[in-house]
Amino acid sequence: MSHIKRINHVAVVVDDMEKALSFWRDALGMELHELRDVPVEKSQIAFLPLEGSEVELVMPTSDDSGIARYLAKRGPGMHHICLEVDDIAGMLAQLRTKGVRLINEEPRTSADGKKYAFIHPESTAGVLVELYEL
Amino acid sequence: MSHIKRINHVAVVVDDMEKALSFWRDALGMELHELRDVPVEKSQIAFLPLEGSEVELVMPTSDDSGIARYLAKRGPGMHHICLEVDDIAGMLAQLRTKGVRLINEEPRTSADGKKYAFIHPESTAGVLVELYEL
Repeated sequence: MSHIKRINHVAVVVDDMEKALSFWRDALGMELHELRDVPVEKSQIAFLPLEGSEVELVMPTSDDSGIARYLAKRGPGMHHICLEVDDIAGMLAQLRTKGVRLINEEPRTSADGKKYAFIHPESTAGVLVELYEL
Repeated sequence: MSHIKRINHVAVVVDDMEKALSFWRDALGMELHELRDVPVEKSQIAFLPLEGSEVELVMPTSDDSGIARYLAKRGPGMHHICLEVDDIAGMLAQLRTKGVRLINEEPRTSADGKKYAFIHPESTAGVLVELYEL
């Protein structure tokens, strides 16, 4: 049976990256490991690692993306939680047998080789949940 | 300088604990370590531990609490992220010098001896952030 291991990251959608970093980096003192433009996701992402997980700050760089629409509708705040799993294909199969609504029916692969899939908030008590297999 | 160590937990507010557990425990397969009534917080809390952190599902047990009003206003979903810190009093002092708006100006102590304080979402890009010193 596939197994959830840890919280990989929590993603926060922000409308002003410098202002967000003034809290997360400058006030809390968290390390900004990387500030990356991700054109395919029409976003700029700040990665702030912690022991075993990280906080990601995501700012839309275009108005015509899912994350931009989320920001316009709900304002800045927590966007999703990502859980690391040992066997993502097995977990998706397991979720399907339980009647869980998936956004991605099959694992997708990111540019850096991680397998990921999103679960619909309708099935999770309102939380957008991402699964990662590293 | 006080230091953020890890994500201690992510709290999810739910309106139906059994339905929420049918996803988090039964479909994802996460262990339900404890289901605890917390009268002082007018809540029932499910603790689902992971490596180094946990997911907490929080259901209001009364209509006249902050968490109940949050649920009525925003619906179920992510409520706060809790970050573990080595020196909470030092961190609160550091945050004050940076102009961060605090909900708790001084650390409070939970029934089980943890020191905690909340930071106002106005200063964090919309995220309710809790600090823990264990």
